[in-house]
Amino acid sequence: MNTRIIESAPGAYQYPLLIKQLLLSGQRYAPGGEIVSGAHRYDYRQLSQRIARLANVLTEAGIGAGDTVAVLDWDSHRYLEAYFAVPMIGAVLHHVNVRLSIDQIGYTMQHAEDKLVLVHDDFLPIVEQLVDQLPTVQGYIQLNDGEASGRATFETLGEYEVLLAAAEVSYDFPDFDENSVATTFYTTGTTGNPKGVYFSHRQLVLHTLATATTLAAFDGVPLLRSEDVYMPMTPMFHVHAWGIPYVATLLGVKQVYPGRYEPNRLVRLYREEGVTFSHGVPTVLQMILNSEEAESTDLSRWKLMTGGAAPTEALVRKMSERGIRFYTGYGMSETCPILTISHLSPAQAQLSMEEQIALRMRTGVPLPLVELRLMDDVGNPVAADDLSVGEVQVRTPWLTQGYLREPEKGAELWQGGWLHTGDVASINADGVIQIRDRMKDVIKTGGEWISSLLLESLISKHPAVANVAVVGVPDPRWDERPLAMIVPAEGAEVDADQIKAHLMQYVDSGQINKWAIPEQIRVVDSIPVTSVGKLDKKRIRAQLAGQF
Amino acid sequence: MNTRIIESAPGAYQYPLLIKQLLLSGQRYAPGGEIVSGAHRYDYRQLSQRIARLANVLTEAGIGAGDTVAVLDWDSHRYLEAYFAVPMIGAVLHHVNVRLSIDQIGYTMQHAEDKLVLVHDDFLPIVEQLVDQLPTVQGYIQLNDGEASGRATFETLGEYEVLLAAAEVSYDFPDFDENSVATTFYTTGTTGNPKGVYFSHRQLVLHTLATATTLAAFDGVPLLRSEDVYMPMTPMFHVHAWGIPYVATLLGVKQVYPGRYEPNRLVRLYREEGVTFSHGVPTVLQMILNSEEAESTDLSRWKLMTGGAAPTEALVRKMSERGIRFYTGYGMSETCPILTISHLSPAQAQLSMEEQIALRMRTGVPLPLVELRLMDDVGNPVAADDLSVGEVQVRTPWLTQGYLREPEKGAELWQGGWLHTGDVASINADGVIQIRDRMKDVIKTGGEWISSLLLESLISKHPAVANVAVVGVPDPRWDERPLAMIVPAEGAEVDADQIKAHLMQYVDSGQINKWAIPEQIRVVDSIPVTSVGKLDKKRIRAQLAGQF
Repeated sequence: MNTRIIESAPGAYQYPLLIKQLLLSGQRYAPGGEIVSGAHRYDYRQLSQRIARLANVLTEAGIGAGDTVAVLDWDSHRYLEAYFAVPMIGAVLHHVNVRLSIDQIGYTMQHAEDKLVLVHDDFLPIVEQLVDQLPTVQGYIQLNDGEASGRATFETLGEYEVLLAAAEVSYDFPDFDENSVATTFYTTGTTGNPKGVYFSHRQLVLHTLATATTLAAFDGVPLLRSEDVYMPMTPMFHVHAWGIPYVATLLGVKQVYPGRYEPNRLVRLYREEGVTFSHGVPTVLQMILNSEEAESTDLSRWKLMTGGAAPTEALVRKMSERGIRFYTGYGMSETCPILTISHLSPAQAQLSMEEQIALRMRTGVPLPLVELRLMDDVGNPVAADDLSVGEVQVRTPWLTQGYLREPEKGAELWQGGWLHTGDVASINADGVIQIRDRMKDVIKTGGEWISSLLLESLISKHPAVANVAVVGVPDPRWDERPLAMIVPAEGAEVDADQIKAHLMQYVDSGQINKWAIPEQIRVVDSIPVTSVGKLDKKRIRAQLAGQF
Repeated sequence: MNTRIIESAPGAYQYPLLIKQLLLSGQRYAPGGEIVSGAHRYDYRQLSQRIARLANVLTEAGIGAGDTVAVLDWDSHRYLEAYFAVPMIGAVLHHVNVRLSIDQIGYTMQHAEDKLVLVHDDFLPIVEQLVDQLPTVQGYIQLNDGEASGRATFETLGEYEVLLAAAEVSYDFPDFDENSVATTFYTTGTTGNPKGVYFSHRQLVLHTLATATTLAAFDGVPLLRSEDVYMPMTPMFHVHAWGIPYVATLLGVKQVYPGRYEPNRLVRLYREEGVTFSHGVPTVLQMILNSEEAESTDLSRWKLMTGGAAPTEALVRKMSERGIRFYTGYGMSETCPILTISHLSPAQAQLSMEEQIALRMRTGVPLPLVELRLMDDVGNPVAADDLSVGEVQVRTPWLTQGYLREPEKGAELWQGGWLHTGDVASINADGVIQIRDRMKDVIKTGGEWISSLLLESLISKHPAVANVAVVGVPDPRWDERPLAMIVPAEGAEVDADQIKAHLMQYVDSGQINKWAIPEQIRVVDSIPVTSVGKLDKKRIRAQLAGQF
């Protein structure tokens, strides 16, 4: 298109979007705002100085533009400083997922070509096993929480705080192309090696601005404003801790970094530091609610955003009983991550908490600048009836533009110019999204999609059902049909006809279509699960294969 | 710098920042949110449809990418629709300043090469006089407020609402380069022709996001959140109405467009439509406070942002007496416009309103992504003592990259890679800016700068002074020295020594330096003023020239 683009006047500065600019406002609006982490407690002026010191340490360690710096740490002020200092010198921050297997950690550190490694003493045993397999690594810096440093069996440059204390307090951070990679980390599927995603300065700045606007401006999502106190409960190696440390720093809010997650300590920090906003996966929130400290603590000041997996109704009910204001977010490693957040309209906010629960559990409304569509099998948008499902496809300014050194996999992710999330969702008349399934688990029947998760959820409401899995099995006429495997509750009996009759009530209430009811319902003794206790649909399908 | 830039995977979509994306979230979060303008009242779904209809009308009128569309209108829903539709088809929106002289209006329309003109009936007399001097214009569309259209003596394509009603309700808005020019308008100095500034899609999106974050997230600037009701009182032809219509649309808030400003009607709209947030220059706010309707109306729901000129203390005091929460913003045509907004820390917000007044009148704190520095004569940053002054120089992602077809003037604006505002300011220890003078009026003495405005303000506190002007006059030793001209109050007598003694108290209290006291203080009968009643320093200096 022949739009008008005017050449800039001589000298005109074309301002690039760089992570260093996210540091400007926090210290201006709240120079005395605190960063709290273990025994460390300092303000935003000192945060800027420490970031400059870290940049000097990195530079002296031989790190330059384009090099990759790996971090293996718990949630800490050091991680926050690395979120800024590493990209600000033009280098790439690799958040190493310390929960992967040692082989996978080794693979990701080799694949990312890490040059310097910041490693917490707790992870020295991992690095010790890998140290001979990391030819690109030229140095290690030790991190610890105030005790004497652990003894590394390999050579290190020294301890983080000691190195920072010896470094110059200022650094002239350069400007450069906003499309420079700032961060990278790895996402694991069920098969194959972890895949590296990557995000640029521009992408992180825009994710920060859109998230900041959403969390602050919409009274139905009143999660984070300047007088809040923030404590992450999502690991900082997990998709930028959902990007919130950047938002919090932009606003100058008090930030509390809790180290290794220990439920009682998290609740104590909440209480003693005046925390008002946190986020975490359902498992972490469940651990907190079950902790001893939580029993004796008023949790009603806490605003919690959950995501990463669907929260159970039991968890959500318990949060609401404790007076916690909770919301659901949705996103993935490939999306920086935030795409949607659940939202209450002013009228909905007047409903009883019982009525609000379903609304707060929904996947939510897309953020500003997020284009999101739900596409069926033949590439048409699905009806906004909350019943029809389609794949979630997105465009926003903060999506990974591929996988690190795997262009074919990137091309698959980006088929047709939209990022394919692999998630299947419905949308209601109010435009609110609900994730229903993963693409690979959805049952494709007669050109329509049936959510296996929805069927599982409805079947499990039957009192005689202890466990259930629904998978698609080949069908000559409909391509696929759902098949349900059911484990009866102890001492109970159940048969296929009872389940079909049970499901009919959801047909009557409009939650499923009649053709979603499985013809085949098998009562079994047990259902294969993965090592973390999830239904293992791959194995279930393999068991069933050959039977059709 | 050799940062890492990775080629995108095949098919990966590189999301450009385009104005059309600002429309996404409002209708998702608040589909039923209202736009009110004269007899028109419609919701965000209809806003999108009307923007599509306008795009079809423009396209049918022969407007394509790169063409310029001029608007001469009061603040209206039509202007809001043009803010979106014109840039969204790749064309350029020219906000014509209808307050310029007819010659200047003609000059700007010729210089911008307007191709289509949307003109309100009230401005038909202007266009009628210009119609033969606008060779680039190929068509006119008439705008009116519900009465039968005025009779134009030239041919038009028809009336806006009639054309919209006949147009298709959907439009496939294309994506294009985010650096495409979206808007243009003209700024007038004291000499020479008006100069055209221009802003790209990228710049407007970033200005919107940073402003939205600031107005929503900082409790010390709680101006605009999703449940607010917005009514501009800055003309929409004046620097995008400070960019707030874009912010309001992003949030989906109720928007009220008041047409031609009539103080009593503005207050009625405030009362009847539930307005909570407006902005305007001090003159407009003064008119409103003086209106009859204001006397009988509770104004304490109103949050007002003022800017464009320094508010007088009398105005600010009156606003605070009426319970209005007011803030000051700072920016200029060249800067999109917002650079700073006054801000109260939580502690300051607890002060009495009397104590808050000075804080709320200050120029304020720079927004996120705004780099702002105060530079003295020799290019050094001034001390943060609120006494030293320097020129305000800025970098942000939303600054005009030059003047339309005047690269030399653009180069002057952008000397050294920083936009030179021509304003002189001080900064205090809290990082809060205060504009003190215009560069051309500041007095440069012995390598230091003295604010003429500050001296005038301090001298005018003397009870015997009715009017005062301070200008710099040449001095062989100090380059310049301040000279004060004083008109005594009726019946009062005053001499130079009294004024010098009066000024000594401000030296003692640290508000000025001793060397700022003028040696020359002249008592005169009158001081030259401009046609709008401002001190005419150009004429004062000319009168004094030759005497030294």
